[in-house]
Amino acid sequence: MSITRPRGFRAAGLAAGLKSTGATDLTLIVNDGPRQSAAAVFTANRVQAAPVIWSREAVADGRARAVVLNSGGANACTGPEGLADTRRTAEHLAATLEVSAHDVLVCSTGLIGERLPMQTLLAGITTGATRLAAGAEPDAAAARAIMTTDTVPKTAERTTDSGVRVGGIAKGAGMLAPQLATMLVVLTTDADIDADTADAVLREATAATFDRVDSDACMSTNDTVILMASGASGVAPDIRELTEAVRAVSADLARQLVADAEGASHDVHVVVRSATTEAAALAVAREIARSNLVKAAIFGNDPNWGRIVSAAGCVPEALAPFAVEDLSVRVNGVEVCRAGGAHRDRSEVDMTPREILIEVDLGAGDAAGDIWTNDLTHDYVEENSAYSS
Amino acid sequence: MSITRPRGFRAAGLAAGLKSTGATDLTLIVNDGPRQSAAAVFTANRVQAAPVIWSREAVADGRARAVVLNSGGANACTGPEGLADTRRTAEHLAATLEVSAHDVLVCSTGLIGERLPMQTLLAGITTGATRLAAGAEPDAAAARAIMTTDTVPKTAERTTDSGVRVGGIAKGAGMLAPQLATMLVVLTTDADIDADTADAVLREATAATFDRVDSDACMSTNDTVILMASGASGVAPDIRELTEAVRAVSADLARQLVADAEGASHDVHVVVRSATTEAAALAVAREIARSNLVKAAIFGNDPNWGRIVSAAGCVPEALAPFAVEDLSVRVNGVEVCRAGGAHRDRSEVDMTPREILIEVDLGAGDAAGDIWTNDLTHDYVEENSAYSS
Repeated sequence: MSITRPRGFRAAGLAAGLKSTGATDLTLIVNDGPRQSAAAVFTANRVQAAPVIWSREAVADGRARAVVLNSGGANACTGPEGLADTRRTAEHLAATLEVSAHDVLVCSTGLIGERLPMQTLLAGITTGATRLAAGAEPDAAAARAIMTTDTVPKTAERTTDSGVRVGGIAKGAGMLAPQLATMLVVLTTDADIDADTADAVLREATAATFDRVDSDACMSTNDTVILMASGASGVAPDIRELTEAVRAVSADLARQLVADAEGASHDVHVVVRSATTEAAALAVAREIARSNLVKAAIFGNDPNWGRIVSAAGCVPEALAPFAVEDLSVRVNGVEVCRAGGAHRDRSEVDMTPREILIEVDLGAGDAAGDIWTNDLTHDYVEENSAYSS
Repeated sequence: MSITRPRGFRAAGLAAGLKSTGATDLTLIVNDGPRQSAAAVFTANRVQAAPVIWSREAVADGRARAVVLNSGGANACTGPEGLADTRRTAEHLAATLEVSAHDVLVCSTGLIGERLPMQTLLAGITTGATRLAAGAEPDAAAARAIMTTDTVPKTAERTTDSGVRVGGIAKGAGMLAPQLATMLVVLTTDADIDADTADAVLREATAATFDRVDSDACMSTNDTVILMASGASGVAPDIRELTEAVRAVSADLARQLVADAEGASHDVHVVVRSATTEAAALAVAREIARSNLVKAAIFGNDPNWGRIVSAAGCVPEALAPFAVEDLSVRVNGVEVCRAGGAHRDRSEVDMTPREILIEVDLGAGDAAGDIWTNDLTHDYVEENSAYSS
């Protein structure tokens, strides 16, 4: 139970036949209200898949009745025909639900540049809608049907003190994701909130969670995070309370995304402190998290602080003011670098845990920020070189 | 013959004992004039090795009598003691040459964060200076003594129509370089030019060559390119003619750096055309060259245009205005993407050559730019995870 744990939602996952393996590949999620508040955030890539173009417009009025998600094809770089396919997808589900197509959001994930097999997809929607009409289904299949190279479905849920429920599903196997590490997330809540509130809550939650996962610096054409609110709890919670619950569900799912980067041997948490601003801390943390040399060293269980300091030095001073001679670096608690130079011996660092904590102190201010990433491994190279060939 | 092909230069390379393997690790280059014009460009990393700090200041007056380069240690993140070590290095060579220490430039490459064994280094300089005093040596050893994980020494030379000679040596094994792909380059010419001319020529040449090699997006703490002019030809060449020769030597060395990324199975030339400005073209080319997903796909011999287009889409519109629907992509001559969508089948692309040409047309203007990189391979991961452990 995750997205149907909040009251007012039904979900179904099934094998429509989009994947040649016969695995489940189609998820339907319906919000039965009484409200249909919705908000969404999308990839910043200028190359936007057809479902992103569609959903951005469809959610602009703050309403959504349903979401249809497919794996087995990203429907990106498919031109006007691809956009027409997305529209037909939305219209088809809308017809079965007797709602407007503009109240149906669409997400797709898989290979770029190929059209979806529409007859197969539409037939799958018909089947799924029939199941939904028969009543609420357990939603485990919904999380499973959006998987690509993910090894496990990702779900999370929280209940606030005032009894409001929040649930979510996610896909995206971090750095081992296919094609572009596409991340799709659907969050649901039975809080009684309007669309503006949903939007504010979602943006605050994603900024602190999904935006801070950076598996390989590659932005997808399809990344989408959706929040739907049914109001079925009858409770209009304090916005801080709701934001905290949505943030907690998002953080839980984001951590699961990092952990499922199977090819990775380490999950790496880069924490930067004593920065002049949070933006400065995040700029330094992201540069370290994106350094192939840092990531390869961690794969080799080498707490190579020289590479960490050097990556920090690549951030322009205008973005993150600090003096190199004030830098200190801890790896798994051992201060291997102090005042910009060698300190404790790196042989003291225990690199055996899966989780590696890199703490950088800039000595420049009071702000902090963190980024999650993975190490750079042979399996990453293998998976991403072999995927489509 | 390379750096001593231009008249007025002597060079020596020897094994001082900095490398535990006993390989050559110390290079001395002396400019006997009559001029000692010099210019240099350095890494933009804010973490600057001691020799970079020293040499930047020493070359500020446009004069240099000699350069001493060592492998076996980067002398970076070594604090005031490291800077004192560099100063002693320069002073020691200066004393043997009876010149000012401020006319001696220093370059170092190797592991970050460790002090150099100064007695060994100074004794090596004494030995090298004795050999230099005995007369000009063949300079093959000079190119070899600055190697780290390079498999071959890199040298180049050109002679202009007016008889001016230009030579150069380089180290840095591209993406397979240790630590930070440190690139050290020394260029010599017997042109009769002043320091301002040397500076202008060097900056124009590096902007079009070394600045366009991007093996793994990681900037070194030690990168240095030096140009010394002896005036020994007695010819004050046309500046265009000299710039072209220095650019040609630099391009030759840059191409050798890419080719010596042994772990790489492909050298990748990313050419972006029809951009609004050269800066826009370079921004798009660099983003593609830095994409781990593009690089891993090429390792898998997969002309994955979806990843190429998606990387282009990650460049902010303010940096590179273009419309996705105007994009076309050729891989090794086959137009796999036209108008932002699939065109010719990717099975038509021959990915067997070592050199892969990615041509992107933005359809937005008349400017072009290119970047050289390598593919992302198992050997890259291996070399960079195992190097220091």
